[in-house]
Amino acid sequence: MTIKLHVFPMSPRGFKVLFAAEQLGIDYEMVFVDFGKQAQRGAGFTALNPNQRMPVLEDGEYVLWESNAIVQYLASLKPESGMLPSDLKARMAAVKWQFWESAHWDPAAAIFMFENVVKALFGIGAPDPAELKRGTELMARLAPTSKASFRRPASSPATR
Amino acid sequence: MTIKLHVFPMSPRGFKVLFAAEQLGIDYEMVFVDFGKQAQRGAGFTALNPNQRMPVLEDGEYVLWESNAIVQYLASLKPESGMLPSDLKARMAAVKWQFWESAHWDPAAAIFMFENVVKALFGIGAPDPAELKRGTELMARLAPTSKASFRRPASSPATR
Repeated sequence: MTIKLHVFPMSPRGFKVLFAAEQLGIDYEMVFVDFGKQAQRGAGFTALNPNQRMPVLEDGEYVLWESNAIVQYLASLKPESGMLPSDLKARMAAVKWQFWESAHWDPAAAIFMFENVVKALFGIGAPDPAELKRGTELMARLAPTSKASFRRPASSPATR
Repeated sequence: MTIKLHVFPMSPRGFKVLFAAEQLGIDYEMVFVDFGKQAQRGAGFTALNPNQRMPVLEDGEYVLWESNAIVQYLASLKPESGMLPSDLKARMAAVKWQFWESAHWDPAAAIFMFENVVKALFGIGAPDPAELKRGTELMARLAPTSKASFRRPASSPATR
Protein backbone atom coordinates (compact mmCIF):
# COMPACT_ATOMS: atom_id res chain seq x y z
CA MET A 1 0.00 0.00 0.00
CA THR A 2 1.31 3.43 -0.93
CA ILE A 3 2.34 5.67 1.94
CA LYS A 4 0.23 8.81 2.30
CA LEU A 5 1.83 12.08 3.40
CA HIS A 6 -0.66 14.69 4.59
CA VAL A 7 1.08 18.04 4.14
CA PHE A 8 0.72 21.74 3.57
CA PRO A 9 3.79 21.69 1.32
CA MET A 10 4.69 25.38 1.72
CA SER A 11 5.38 24.76 5.39
CA PRO A 12 9.01 23.81 6.14
CA ARG A 13 7.67 21.00 8.35
CA GLY A 14 5.60 19.65 5.48
CA PHE A 15 8.29 20.23 2.88
CA LYS A 16 10.74 18.39 5.14
CA VAL A 17 8.95 15.05 4.86
CA LEU A 18 8.39 15.44 1.10
CA PHE A 19 12.09 16.20 0.73
CA ALA A 20 13.01 13.09 2.75
CA ALA A 21 10.67 10.87 0.71
CA GLU A 22 12.06 12.23 -2.55
CA GLN A 23 15.69 11.87 -1.44
CA LEU A 24 15.02 8.32 -0.31
CA GLY A 25 13.12 7.41 -3.48
CA ILE A 26 10.05 6.35 -1.55
CA ASP A 27 6.78 6.00 -3.44
CA TYR A 28 4.14 8.16 -1.74
CA GLU A 29 0.85 9.91 -2.31
CA MET A 30 0.63 13.54 -1.23
CA VAL A 31 -2.60 14.58 0.48
CA PHE A 32 -2.96 18.37 0.54
CA VAL A 33 -3.90 19.83 3.93
CA ASP A 34 -5.64 23.08 3.04
CA PHE A 35 -4.60 25.59 5.70
CA GLY A 36 -6.68 28.24 3.94
CA LYS A 37 -9.78 26.21 4.89
CA GLN A 38 -8.43 25.23 8.33
CA ALA A 39 -8.51 21.60 7.15
CA GLN A 40 -6.07 20.63 9.91
CA ARG A 41 -8.79 21.38 12.48
CA GLY A 42 -11.49 19.31 10.76
CA ALA A 43 -12.85 16.10 12.29
CA GLY A 44 -11.17 13.84 9.72
CA PHE A 45 -7.74 15.31 10.24
CA THR A 46 -8.14 15.51 14.02
CA ALA A 47 -8.89 11.76 14.05
CA LEU A 48 -5.45 11.25 12.49
CA ASN A 49 -3.64 13.72 14.72
CA PRO A 50 -5.37 15.11 17.83
CA ASN A 51 -2.68 17.81 17.88
CA GLN A 52 -4.22 19.13 14.63
CA ARG A 53 -0.86 19.61 12.95
CA MET A 54 0.55 18.40 9.71
CA PRO A 55 2.52 16.49 8.50
CA VAL A 56 0.89 13.13 9.15
CA LEU A 57 2.00 9.83 7.62
CA GLU A 58 -0.35 6.95 6.91
CA ASP A 59 1.16 3.58 6.05
CA GLY A 60 -1.86 1.29 5.81
CA GLU A 61 -3.40 1.27 9.30
CA TYR A 62 -0.33 2.88 10.84
CA VAL A 63 -0.52 6.62 11.56
CA LEU A 64 2.47 8.74 12.57
CA TRP A 65 2.81 12.46 13.22
CA GLU A 66 5.62 14.88 14.14
CA SER A 67 7.74 15.72 11.09
CA ASN A 68 11.03 14.49 12.52
CA ALA A 69 9.56 11.13 13.58
CA ILE A 70 8.18 10.77 10.03
CA VAL A 71 11.63 11.48 8.57
CA GLN A 72 13.11 8.80 10.86
CA TYR A 73 10.39 6.38 9.79
CA LEU A 74 10.96 7.01 6.07
CA ALA A 75 14.75 6.78 6.47
CA SER A 76 14.37 3.51 8.39
CA LEU A 77 12.48 2.03 5.42
CA LYS A 78 15.63 2.59 3.35
CA PRO A 79 18.52 1.67 5.63
CA GLU A 80 20.79 1.33 2.61
CA SER A 81 20.46 5.10 2.07
CA GLY A 82 22.57 5.80 5.16
CA MET A 83 20.33 8.79 5.96
CA LEU A 84 19.79 7.32 9.42
CA PRO A 85 22.85 5.17 10.22
CA SER A 86 22.31 1.80 11.91
CA ASP A 87 25.32 2.33 14.18
CA LEU A 88 23.98 3.74 17.47
CA LYS A 89 26.52 6.54 17.95
CA ALA A 90 26.31 7.70 14.35
CA ARG A 91 22.51 7.51 14.42
CA MET A 92 22.25 9.57 17.59
CA ALA A 93 24.63 12.17 16.13
CA ALA A 94 21.98 12.66 13.41
CA VAL A 95 18.99 12.44 15.78
CA LYS A 96 20.65 15.07 18.00
CA TRP A 97 20.35 17.58 15.16
CA GLN A 98 16.68 16.70 14.69
CA PHE A 99 16.04 17.57 18.32
CA TRP A 100 18.15 20.71 18.02
CA GLU A 101 16.04 21.70 15.01
CA SER A 102 12.87 20.96 16.96
CA ALA A 103 13.85 22.69 20.20
CA HIS A 104 16.01 25.58 18.99
CA TRP A 105 16.10 26.22 15.24
CA ASP A 106 12.42 25.82 14.36
CA PRO A 107 11.08 28.07 17.16
CA ALA A 108 13.43 30.86 16.02
CA ALA A 109 12.87 30.43 12.28
CA ALA A 110 9.09 29.97 12.68
CA ILE A 111 8.74 33.48 14.10
CA PHE A 112 10.09 35.03 10.88
CA MET A 113 8.05 32.65 8.72
CA PHE A 114 4.85 33.53 10.56
CA GLU A 115 5.38 37.26 10.87
CA ASN A 116 6.81 37.89 7.39
CA VAL A 117 5.28 35.16 5.21
CA VAL A 118 2.21 33.51 6.75
CA LYS A 119 0.58 36.78 7.82
CA ALA A 120 0.92 38.17 4.29
CA LEU A 121 -0.21 34.88 2.70
CA PHE A 122 -3.43 34.75 4.71
CA GLY A 123 -3.92 38.50 5.11
CA ILE A 124 -3.90 38.43 8.90
CA GLY A 125 -2.06 41.61 9.74
CA ALA A 126 1.36 43.23 9.71
CA PRO A 127 4.52 41.74 11.28
CA ASP A 128 4.70 42.33 15.04
CA PRO A 129 7.98 44.15 15.89
CA ALA A 130 8.07 42.57 19.38
CA GLU A 131 7.89 39.09 17.88
CA LEU A 132 10.58 39.91 15.29
CA LYS A 133 12.79 41.15 18.14
CA ARG A 134 12.19 37.89 20.04
CA GLY A 135 13.07 35.91 16.89
CA THR A 136 16.24 37.91 16.33
CA GLU A 137 17.36 37.26 19.90
CA LEU A 138 16.68 33.52 19.56
CA MET A 139 18.54 33.41 16.25
CA ALA A 140 21.56 35.25 17.67
CA ARG A 141 21.66 32.66 20.45
CA LEU A 142 21.96 29.88 17.84
CA ALA A 143 24.69 31.38 15.66
CA PRO A 144 27.68 30.03 17.68
CA THR A 145 26.30 26.46 17.45
CA SER A 146 25.92 26.64 13.70
CA LYS A 147 29.39 28.17 13.30
CA ALA A 148 31.06 25.60 15.56
CA SER A 149 29.28 22.65 14.01
CA PHE A 150 29.27 23.44 10.32
CA ARG A 151 32.80 24.85 10.17
CA ARG A 152 34.92 23.35 7.40
CA PRO A 153 37.60 21.04 8.84
CA ALA A 154 41.10 22.55 8.62
CA SER A 155 42.22 19.63 6.46
CA SER A 156 39.50 19.99 3.82
CA PRO A 157 40.31 21.59 0.45
CA ALA A 158 39.63 25.33 0.54
CA THR A 159 38.15 25.19 -2.93
CA ARG A 160 35.52 22.60 -2.16
CA MET B 1 34.28 3.57 31.22
CA THR B 2 31.43 5.08 33.25
CA ILE B 3 29.03 7.32 31.36
CA LYS B 4 29.07 10.95 32.51
CA LEU B 5 25.85 12.96 32.56
CA HIS B 6 26.37 16.72 32.79
CA VAL B 7 23.19 18.12 34.29
CA PHE B 8 21.56 20.87 36.29
CA PRO B 9 19.30 18.30 37.97
CA MET B 10 16.53 20.74 38.94
CA SER B 11 15.82 21.33 35.25
CA PRO B 12 13.22 18.98 33.75
CA ARG B 13 15.58 18.44 30.81
CA GLY B 14 18.39 17.44 33.17
CA PHE B 15 16.15 15.41 35.44
CA LYS B 16 14.80 13.59 32.37
CA VAL B 17 18.14 11.94 31.53
CA LEU B 18 18.83 11.07 35.19
CA PHE B 19 15.38 9.49 35.38
CA ALA B 20 16.04 7.46 32.22
CA ALA B 21 19.43 6.26 33.50
CA GLU B 22 17.92 5.27 36.85
CA GLN B 23 14.95 3.49 35.26
CA LEU B 24 17.27 1.62 32.93
CA GLY B 25 19.72 0.71 35.70
CA ILE B 26 22.63 2.33 33.87
CA ASP B 27 25.77 3.08 35.87
CA TYR B 28 26.62 6.78 35.47
CA GLU B 29 28.50 9.64 37.05
CA MET B 30 26.59 12.89 37.50
CA VAL B 31 28.54 16.08 36.73
CA PHE B 32 26.80 19.13 38.20
CA VAL B 33 26.39 22.05 35.79
CA ASP B 34 26.21 25.07 38.08
CA PHE B 35 23.68 27.43 36.49
CA GLY B 36 24.23 29.84 39.41
CA LYS B 37 27.79 30.36 38.11
CA GLN B 38 26.76 30.22 34.41
CA ALA B 39 28.92 27.10 34.09
CA GLN B 40 27.08 26.15 30.90
CA ARG B 41 28.65 29.17 29.16
CA GLY B 42 32.23 28.38 30.26
CA ALA B 43 34.90 27.30 27.77
CA GLY B 44 35.01 23.72 29.04
CA PHE B 45 31.31 23.18 28.72
CA THR B 46 31.08 25.00 25.38
CA ALA B 47 33.71 22.61 23.99
CA LEU B 48 31.30 19.77 24.82
CA ASN B 49 28.19 21.53 23.52
CA PRO B 50 28.52 24.70 21.43
CA ASN B 51 24.81 25.31 22.09
CA GLN B 52 25.77 25.86 25.78
CA ARG B 53 22.92 23.76 27.09
CA MET B 54 22.77 20.83 29.43
CA PRO B 55 22.30 17.90 29.54
CA VAL B 56 25.39 16.49 27.83
CA LEU B 57 26.41 12.82 27.82
CA GLU B 58 30.00 11.64 27.64
CA ASP B 59 30.63 7.98 26.93
CA GLY B 60 34.41 7.78 26.62
CA GLU B 61 35.32 9.95 23.63
CA TYR B 62 31.70 10.11 22.46
CA VAL B 63 29.77 13.30 23.28
CA LEU B 64 26.02 13.68 22.81
CA TRP B 65 23.63 16.53 23.62
CA GLU B 66 19.88 17.21 23.38
CA SER B 67 18.05 15.51 26.24
CA ASN B 68 15.77 13.37 24.07
CA ALA B 69 18.67 12.07 21.98
CA ILE B 70 20.45 11.16 25.24
CA VAL B 71 17.36 9.27 26.44
CA GLN B 72 17.29 7.36 23.13
CA TYR B 73 21.00 6.58 23.49
CA LEU B 74 20.62 5.31 27.06
CA ALA B 75 17.53 3.25 26.15
CA SER B 76 19.37 1.75 23.19
CA LEU B 77 22.09 0.50 25.54
CA LYS B 78 19.41 -1.58 27.30
CA PRO B 79 17.20 -2.91 24.50
CA GLU B 80 15.84 -5.57 26.87
CA SER B 81 14.15 -2.77 28.87
CA GLY B 82 11.67 -2.18 26.05
CA MET B 83 11.83 1.57 26.75
CA LEU B 84 12.67 2.11 23.07
CA PRO B 85 11.17 -0.84 21.15
CA SER B 86 13.23 -2.42 18.36
CA ASP B 87 10.15 -2.74 16.12
CA LEU B 88 10.13 0.31 13.83
CA LYS B 89 6.45 1.24 14.18
CA ALA B 90 6.43 0.83 17.96
CA ARG B 91 9.70 2.73 18.27
CA MET B 92 8.44 5.65 16.18
CA ALA B 93 5.23 5.76 18.26
CA ALA B 94 7.51 6.50 21.24
CA VAL B 95 9.84 8.85 19.35
CA LYS B 96 6.77 10.79 18.15
CA TRP B 97 6.02 11.73 21.77
CA GLN B 98 9.61 12.84 22.28
CA PHE B 99 9.26 15.26 19.37
CA TRP B 100 5.83 16.35 20.61
CA GLU B 101 7.42 17.06 24.00
CA SER B 102 10.24 18.95 22.32
CA ALA B 103 8.10 20.99 19.91
CA HIS B 104 4.90 21.53 21.88
CA TRP B 105 4.91 20.51 25.54
CA ASP B 106 8.31 21.83 26.63
CA PRO B 107 7.88 25.32 25.11
CA ALA B 108 4.56 25.71 26.96
CA ALA B 109 5.71 24.23 30.28
CA ALA B 110 9.05 26.06 30.19
CA ILE B 111 7.30 29.43 30.29
CA PHE B 112 5.71 28.62 33.66
CA MET B 113 8.95 27.10 34.98
CA PHE B 114 10.93 30.17 34.02
CA GLU B 115 8.44 32.82 35.13
CA ASN B 116 7.31 31.14 38.38
CA VAL B 117 10.31 29.08 39.49
CA VAL B 118 13.59 30.09 37.82
CA LYS B 119 13.06 33.82 38.31
CA ALA B 120 12.44 33.32 42.03
CA LEU B 121 15.35 30.84 42.35
CA PHE B 122 17.87 33.24 40.86
CA GLY B 123 16.23 36.50 42.01
CA ILE B 124 15.81 37.89 38.50
CA GLY B 125 12.45 39.61 38.75
CA ALA B 126 8.73 38.97 38.97
CA PRO B 127 6.70 36.79 36.59
CA ASP B 128 5.79 38.59 33.36
CA PRO B 129 1.98 38.54 32.88
CA ALA B 130 2.35 38.65 29.07
CA GLU B 131 4.54 35.56 29.12
CA LEU B 132 2.16 33.72 31.48
CA LYS B 133 -0.68 34.57 29.08
CA ARG B 134 1.35 33.18 26.15
CA GLY B 135 2.04 30.02 28.17
CA THR B 136 -1.62 29.60 29.07
CA GLU B 137 -2.61 29.89 25.40
CA LEU B 138 0.01 27.33 24.36
CA MET B 139 -1.10 24.96 27.13
CA ALA B 140 -4.79 25.25 26.16
CA ARG B 141 -3.78 24.35 22.60
CA LEU B 142 -2.24 21.09 23.89
CA ALA B 143 -5.06 19.89 26.13
CA PRO B 144 -7.07 18.07 23.41
CA THR B 145 -3.98 16.06 22.39
CA SER B 146 -3.32 14.96 25.95
CA LYS B 147 -6.97 14.08 26.50
CA ALA B 148 -7.28 12.12 23.25
CA SER B 149 -4.01 10.29 23.73
CA PHE B 150 -3.95 9.44 27.41
CA ARG B 151 -7.64 8.51 27.66
CA ARG B 152 -8.21 5.16 29.36
CA PRO B 153 -9.30 2.53 26.82
CA ALA B 154 -12.99 1.61 27.20
CA SER B 155 -11.99 -1.99 27.89
CA SER B 156 -9.64 -1.25 30.76
CA PRO B 157 -10.76 -1.71 34.39
CA ALA B 158 -12.26 1.48 35.79
CA THR B 159 -10.58 0.87 39.11
CA ARG B 160 -7.06 0.72 37.75
